[in-house]
Amino acid sequence: MTETRGTASAPDALIVFTPSGRRGRFPAGTAVLDAARALGVDVDSVCGTRGICGRCQVVPEFGEFAKHGVTSSPDHLTGLAVKETTYRSRKGLAEGRRLACAAYMTGDLVIDVPAESQVHRQVVRKGLDLRRFVVDPVVRLRYVEVEQPELAVAGGDLERFRTALARDWQIADAVVALPVARDLQKALRDGRWSVTAAVREGADGERPEVVAVWPGFKERLLGIAIDIGSTTIAGHLADLGTGEVLASAGVMNPQIRFGEDLMSRVSYAMLHDDGAAAMTRAVRDALDGLAGSLVAAAGAAGAEAETDDVLELVLVGNPVMHHLVLGLDPVPLGSAPFALAVDGAVTTTAADLGLALRPTARVYLLPCIAGHVGADTAGAILSDRPHESDAVRLLVDVGTNAELVLGNKHRLLAASSPTGPAFEGAQVSAGQRAAPGAVERVRIDPVTLEPRFKVIGSSHWSDEPAFPASARTTGITGICGSGIIEAIAELYLAGVISADGVIDGSLAARTPRVIANGRTFSYVLSEGTPRLLVTQEDVRAIQLAKAALHAGAQLLMDHFGVAAVDEIHLAGAFGSHIDTRHAMVLGLIPDCDLAHVASVGNAAGTGALIALLSRASRAEIEDVVRRVEKIETAVEPSFQAYFVDALAIPHKTSPLTNLAKAVSLPARPAPGDAAGPTRTRRRAAAAATPSETQA
Amino acid sequence: MTETRGTASAPDALIVFTPSGRRGRFPAGTAVLDAARALGVDVDSVCGTRGICGRCQVVPEFGEFAKHGVTSSPDHLTGLAVKETTYRSRKGLAEGRRLACAAYMTGDLVIDVPAESQVHRQVVRKGLDLRRFVVDPVVRLRYVEVEQPELAVAGGDLERFRTALARDWQIADAVVALPVARDLQKALRDGRWSVTAAVREGADGERPEVVAVWPGFKERLLGIAIDIGSTTIAGHLADLGTGEVLASAGVMNPQIRFGEDLMSRVSYAMLHDDGAAAMTRAVRDALDGLAGSLVAAAGAAGAEAETDDVLELVLVGNPVMHHLVLGLDPVPLGSAPFALAVDGAVTTTAADLGLALRPTARVYLLPCIAGHVGADTAGAILSDRPHESDAVRLLVDVGTNAELVLGNKHRLLAASSPTGPAFEGAQVSAGQRAAPGAVERVRIDPVTLEPRFKVIGSSHWSDEPAFPASARTTGITGICGSGIIEAIAELYLAGVISADGVIDGSLAARTPRVIANGRTFSYVLSEGTPRLLVTQEDVRAIQLAKAALHAGAQLLMDHFGVAAVDEIHLAGAFGSHIDTRHAMVLGLIPDCDLAHVASVGNAAGTGALIALLSRASRAEIEDVVRRVEKIETAVEPSFQAYFVDALAIPHKTSPLTNLAKAVSLPARPAPGDAAGPTRTRRRAAAAATPSETQA
Repeated sequence: MTETRGTASAPDALIVFTPSGRRGRFPAGTAVLDAARALGVDVDSVCGTRGICGRCQVVPEFGEFAKHGVTSSPDHLTGLAVKETTYRSRKGLAEGRRLACAAYMTGDLVIDVPAESQVHRQVVRKGLDLRRFVVDPVVRLRYVEVEQPELAVAGGDLERFRTALARDWQIADAVVALPVARDLQKALRDGRWSVTAAVREGADGERPEVVAVWPGFKERLLGIAIDIGSTTIAGHLADLGTGEVLASAGVMNPQIRFGEDLMSRVSYAMLHDDGAAAMTRAVRDALDGLAGSLVAAAGAAGAEAETDDVLELVLVGNPVMHHLVLGLDPVPLGSAPFALAVDGAVTTTAADLGLALRPTARVYLLPCIAGHVGADTAGAILSDRPHESDAVRLLVDVGTNAELVLGNKHRLLAASSPTGPAFEGAQVSAGQRAAPGAVERVRIDPVTLEPRFKVIGSSHWSDEPAFPASARTTGITGICGSGIIEAIAELYLAGVISADGVIDGSLAARTPRVIANGRTFSYVLSEGTPRLLVTQEDVRAIQLAKAALHAGAQLLMDHFGVAAVDEIHLAGAFGSHIDTRHAMVLGLIPDCDLAHVASVGNAAGTGALIALLSRASRAEIEDVVRRVEKIETAVEPSFQAYFVDALAIPHKTSPLTNLAKAVSLPARPAPGDAAGPTRTRRRAAAAATPSETQA
Repeated sequence: MTETRGTASAPDALIVFTPSGRRGRFPAGTAVLDAARALGVDVDSVCGTRGICGRCQVVPEFGEFAKHGVTSSPDHLTGLAVKETTYRSRKGLAEGRRLACAAYMTGDLVIDVPAESQVHRQVVRKGLDLRRFVVDPVVRLRYVEVEQPELAVAGGDLERFRTALARDWQIADAVVALPVARDLQKALRDGRWSVTAAVREGADGERPEVVAVWPGFKERLLGIAIDIGSTTIAGHLADLGTGEVLASAGVMNPQIRFGEDLMSRVSYAMLHDDGAAAMTRAVRDALDGLAGSLVAAAGAAGAEAETDDVLELVLVGNPVMHHLVLGLDPVPLGSAPFALAVDGAVTTTAADLGLALRPTARVYLLPCIAGHVGADTAGAILSDRPHESDAVRLLVDVGTNAELVLGNKHRLLAASSPTGPAFEGAQVSAGQRAAPGAVERVRIDPVTLEPRFKVIGSSHWSDEPAFPASARTTGITGICGSGIIEAIAELYLAGVISADGVIDGSLAARTPRVIANGRTFSYVLSEGTPRLLVTQEDVRAIQLAKAALHAGAQLLMDHFGVAAVDEIHLAGAFGSHIDTRHAMVLGLIPDCDLAHVASVGNAAGTGALIALLSRASRAEIEDVVRRVEKIETAVEPSFQAYFVDALAIPHKTSPLTNLAKAVSLPARPAPGDAAGPTRTRRRAAAAATPSETQA
């Protein structure tokens, strides 16, 4: 090909690459790409120096560069080669850009490698916190030109293809399973002995594997990352070559028809012979549907995308979802000792799962941590990175159960708390899922005890004049998880609910909002149809849920040996919608400086995306999960005690040192004497008042 | 478990194992099995010292053994253990036998390891030449007891199973694919945390893989070796643990309906869109049927055998059969450059081929050698072992094409000769496959020119009184390959056919057996219905076929640099039925001492069986095939010249030095003057007269 150092008679020329600053001397006639490779400069290439892929674009910089001690001149580079003009006319090549594989040194040069020409490039996407990771997917495209078969020359199609892979890409020992060898036979002929191979490099120590081949040159490879929630299945479609996220979408989990929450689905599997298989089919069908939607959405946005180009699928989910999608029996997860069939990371094929993707596409599931702490939590760890934190962080993912991770870069603990589904709006009289029409924000005037609220789908508070019109389309249909949290916290702050969680029936004399309801009392949040009540049972359900969560956190803090946490990260949809101040008023989370309490979005799904795009991140999370200490709340004697203590509002185990100072708002006037809140409660009330109401 | 050397205070005792003669000293209390393992004595075990499998049976020998310098006494061994009496009552344990895992040393001992207790044992089976290979299958059973899951103790079912495999069998890095992990989850519970795993060790450097699990203890594992011929598919069912061949059977290849010979099947694939797929389905269905028959036959013979226990399938076949069964396109094999899609050994799964075996069962195909020299020839090499021969051997496998392998332990050459299907009875006027009713033996009286013959299905010659009755059930329906060879050789010896292959029409005046038939003459072999003629076209077809075979052999001899071969081995059904003397009269095979011409049976099928039972043999044949020099007759200029020379009977290229001396029978009286054979021909005639006719 080109001359390399030591073989030429011409004096060596200096080349400096930016931004890396790597430099070296090479004989005149050396291709810029070869110099880059010799120096370990990160320049991409799919076609292997054939001028087809355009991935190796560089920008020669000309002038005197005192900093680098070099004078770079246009004369120090060969002119535009035929493959560059061909590429320019076919796909466009910006002025000033060259293909590093087609430009040869004739003298000293400074060459800039733009970010998009690097193999390991940083990915940025709005709404996804993808800091500190670089795109390095497990599967890459490799273009090869294979020797044609000849009479009396040994070597089948497969063997000559392997020879080309070894020659052009130094991949000497790739596994090629028979289904791919079948495709290869045709692709070689259709592509006139040129093919593009998708080569997958799994875990360290595993041989690379060719998972797909296409005739001729191909440049787009897709991957999908999916978080299988009990309620919602959400995914991202990404270009594995560039790391670009092409589309994001979600669908309902169709397993809901077998049971609203996890345990009812496990029961369904236990009680019906074909129950687990039916749920497995349902979730796999949903994955196929979601993959189709994502590809269609990317296509609608102008990206060339076909389902057949999806070669890697990464899944996260809680243990029951994990087992059901894999076709493993979820029944052992329903009772002690909550035995997982598999807890390590799993790699299988689309064919094995019966997915409507290319059969050889690989499916990777992050490891599960324990019987109640699944691959979704592993994903949340991978995204939120508590294992790199100096501060002691509590990472909470609230769903049917709450998964808790506590620790820092030295040590991580994980547990699950049996919160039940109250936080998701279930087991609450007027509860419903977070959907249009659901009450999601609540304020209660501590003087008049009158409520005002917002519903999903309307941007107005219920006491604003525009509200009736704006809420007409959605109606006011129920109370979602974040709504019930706020309602109960506000009722406590207004003195309607005692620290023991009892609705004060004596207030029925003061306001028609408090009504008798059998032997207990309820608070009327909305008089419409349906009438929305906060009942004594609702308060009890939330008390049980928040006590479980709080006790779990306390247990982990005990094991870790801290009395308080430095920061709290709330993951998941509930974590995104919840008002952290109300959560602290209720005692949902341990005491913490509110400035250090943050919602981190769908961290599980983001973790799946990171695992999709970064090979190194898989080894990382597998290693971290192995080191996580698993705490089983069910066998910890102190859990029950913490649980009982935490039933009170906010709770008895830790002082509210941070609540009052978290916000600095003027105190409201105290309400009437008889039923006025205590002094502590007033301070908490002040803290919990959202700033928007002060505007 | 037991004390090992150096940890005990008791003085060490001497143990001598026979027949290996291995000896060593161990502390009293050492289990005989542990001593055997420490000394590298080959003792089998499936259950891992639990006294369940009974594979480690040994025979303590008592008395003074001067040869070994040891006095072995019944007192030097612990008494019958509970697990031995349990095993004896459950499965029987012969008097004098002990389980090596349950018998502990208390003094000096001589212990005999019977052949059936060795892992690597010799296999002998009537009718199969299985010398020089020991049973060492790629897949073995391993019984393990797995820790039960416990609350708050980490490790899924799979991970605890792996721990047990590593602990009991030192298998630390086994691959367990998801389908097996699914089975494992259930098997662990059904087997109360005890399972038997089938662990497959593929090629060197590959990680072992668990391919199946069963609850509890399991001791039988099956494998099938199949030779896929164009006409017949024949297989053996073997116990992979013992190497015992439990059943052998054959079925017709149902692809025959798509074309009688290979090239017509390739044409079918070329001309019909779904042609190759239809033939693929047909042959796979036949494999399923054959597997079922083999298992049923083994069951009928008293062996416990289930299709589900078949975990390994080895296939051989010519390149077209190889490609069709794998679902590869055979069309490129139909024309130059005869490019194979894959030529190396292939391992895939029953699931991938859609076979009705356990989906994770593995299918191994021996490597192909060249576009016309397939895995069947590799099997023949593995069985016949020319690569270990001192003598220069010609190994010939005659089918639609003739595959030729020439060489010795220093060097092997291979080629295929385009004989066409005449040797199989096709393209011959009265030709038919070797089936009941087909003429298979022919003698022609050189004086009267009258024929006598035998048909398949009757044990009498046609001139014996019992013949009409005995042939009544089959009829006389045609002439098979070996029959036409003998007929033409005999006609030549009787002077009816000239050395140029012309039927002498002047003989019509002497005998009604020679008749005019258009512009040429025919010989009437049988006047029945149908009338069986040997036509001039038949002679031409056989001349072309034998010339191709002879020219191919000559070409290989040229490349190898020898003027003659030391020995000739004829493989395949045709090779088994052909009379080697007639073959030499016709010039089918090169000149060779007839004492060194032997039929070696279905060497391809035997090679498949060896590959099934011996892991080492796979590496061996893959290595040998890589080193075989491939000769392509189509591009060799000398092939055409040899071919033309070889058209004469016997042929012009090599002298018949061995033919006359091969047998020492009295010469027959010379026939009449006019049409009498030449002197050479008379000698050949004497040589060709089968001894049975002299009895």
